[in-house]
Amino acid sequence: MDLIKNLQWRYAVKKYSDKIVSEEKIDQIIEAVNLTASSCGIQPYRLFVITNPDIRQKLGEGSFNAQIHESSHLLVFAGFNEINPSYITDYVEMMEDQRHLEKGELDDFKNTLISHFSTQTREQNILWASKQAYIGLGTALIAAAELKVDATPMEGFDPQLFDSVLGLSDKGLHASVIISLGYRDQENDYLAAAQKTRLPIHEFSTKIN
Amino acid sequence: MDLIKNLQWRYAVKKYSDKIVSEEKIDQIIEAVNLTASSCGIQPYRLFVITNPDIRQKLGEGSFNAQIHESSHLLVFAGFNEINPSYITDYVEMMEDQRHLEKGELDDFKNTLISHFSTQTREQNILWASKQAYIGLGTALIAAAELKVDATPMEGFDPQLFDSVLGLSDKGLHASVIISLGYRDQENDYLAAAQKTRLPIHEFSTKIN
Repeated sequence: MDLIKNLQWRYAVKKYSDKIVSEEKIDQIIEAVNLTASSCGIQPYRLFVITNPDIRQKLGEGSFNAQIHESSHLLVFAGFNEINPSYITDYVEMMEDQRHLEKGELDDFKNTLISHFSTQTREQNILWASKQAYIGLGTALIAAAELKVDATPMEGFDPQLFDSVLGLSDKGLHASVIISLGYRDQENDYLAAAQKTRLPIHEFSTKIN
Repeated sequence: MDLIKNLQWRYAVKKYSDKIVSEEKIDQIIEAVNLTASSCGIQPYRLFVITNPDIRQKLGEGSFNAQIHESSHLLVFAGFNEINPSYITDYVEMMEDQRHLEKGELDDFKNTLISHFSTQTREQNILWASKQAYIGLGTALIAAAELKVDATPMEGFDPQLFDSVLGLSDKGLHASVIISLGYRDQENDYLAAAQKTRLPIHEFSTKIN
């Protein structure tokens, strides 16, 4: 199975070479994330793809993860701070358009969503959107591995700094999780040759028949 | 790119046929989830794979998602309730074993993890473990799609009911998110022929060069 081979190939790169990932590959990774699943299908996060060195230098300040600025590209998964009726309305209209339905045909679906999210606190919506972003993160790692692009998923960054440098709050977003992309420095990355560690399958999973 | 084709093929199935997914395919899906990334690499969730009809009937009570019991298999991603020093110690020992390192060689890593998680509240650890489970969820959906197995990711279930029926609390776990697996009932699933809806790529993503 290709996915299993790709997952065995990947690891969280600590040190990148200077090689740059082609825009064609970056675009395929972005497309895969845009296509992945999200709850209710409403994609409650946005993806920032950053190469600008000054901005990346600022984003990496104070973090133990040098990969924030020392890699080819940086992906920032930015979750919504709220799921408001106007977003849901616009999204469901787009669904009706793309599915060639009459305007209003998905009103029941729209109203169910609006009613559900109105009962959630801002904090609950932020957490929910972040969880969806993690589905995107997993998908980006798999997309990169299929393209033999290396990656490092990271939670060790300063969300407030990211919000301020990227102006996320003004966009109603917050930095949920990030990934650097590039090519491993095989000789200088101590993890490059390390055996992948995983639980024995029967410790990780239980079948109830 | 195969991943993009597989993501375009998949959708959240509403109605399944009676066809059963082979254990060989189920095992490949489990293996993919076990191999996927997790923060710090410590896999803070477990996977339950359920076919038992009585248990599934109980789990589906009160949910609008009939797929909980009407499908071939049910996957339950169960996050840890706490990330305690003894788990970290055992996991890092396993890492040392699998990487053929001397016992104690990863002590710095182990102590950093123990120290970090000791500053987190139970609530923070639960949320963190759930987010990691969502990486697993995305991976399982992609694994299933590569095998042309249909799937439905679901948040619409009763976590307390799952905890009690599966005895999760006693195991230090909570139900984070679930997936049903099976084969779409092409004729009777209104969504089977629907166009996939996604944001225009430039609305979903922003490049900062």
